[in-house]
Amino acid sequence: MSRAIILFAHGARDPEWARPLERLALAVRTASPQDWVLTAFLEFMAPDLAAAADAAVAAGARELIVVPVFLAQGGHVRRDLPRMLEEIAARYPAVQIELRAALGESQVVIDAMAQAVLSTA
Amino acid sequence: MSRAIILFAHGARDPEWARPLERLALAVRTASPQDWVLTAFLEFMAPDLAAAADAAVAAGARELIVVPVFLAQGGHVRRDLPRMLEEIAARYPAVQIELRAALGESQVVIDAMAQAVLSTA
Repeated sequence: MSRAIILFAHGARDPEWARPLERLALAVRTASPQDWVLTAFLEFMAPDLAAAADAAVAAGARELIVVPVFLAQGGHVRRDLPRMLEEIAARYPAVQIELRAALGESQVVIDAMAQAVLSTA
Repeated sequence: MSRAIILFAHGARDPEWARPLERLALAVRTASPQDWVLTAFLEFMAPDLAAAADAAVAAGARELIVVPVFLAQGGHVRRDLPRMLEEIAARYPAVQIELRAALGESQVVIDAMAQAVLSTA
């Protein structure tokens, strides 16, 4: 395992909140079993992004793909996330880190949401 | 127009944040031109849910479909949203109001997110 995909989400006080993210992680693992798929949270839930990155690197990852599971590129994704990634990059200069766009910006996701809106409407 | 679909999202300080939601609204309008599709926000952005409902009812809507554009059913969707809907229902007893599950709970959306994660991975 040399590549880890970190699904980074906001987190919430309600433990139930993380369930769709776990379902997403499972779907990614199933579609790409060669990748190590982790979840990480901005607040309220563990692990945070630094801890997830530490775990991935400790397990041998040399490439981290960080995917913001957010509807859009708000302040958390635009400001907080790059700062966190700079700190991680400073700790692991040999590790390649790639930050993706927020998932909600993807047309395939927008089309699926439109389909879900109308599926029982 | 007797039915309005209200896409209810969190909102953010960054005005760019609402763009994917506007793209979602456009996709729903295109797929279902007979519906009136509105956006509404919990905070930071306008209109709020009450104002969106007022506008829809004033325009003749007799059925409101409220779709939480959230990753999951957290506190906002579980607690805040039902309270807001009770107030709206009390104001408009003749209007039928349907609250949907958070879009991120939908398998079609989860599968599309998994596809987006792996599309350039």
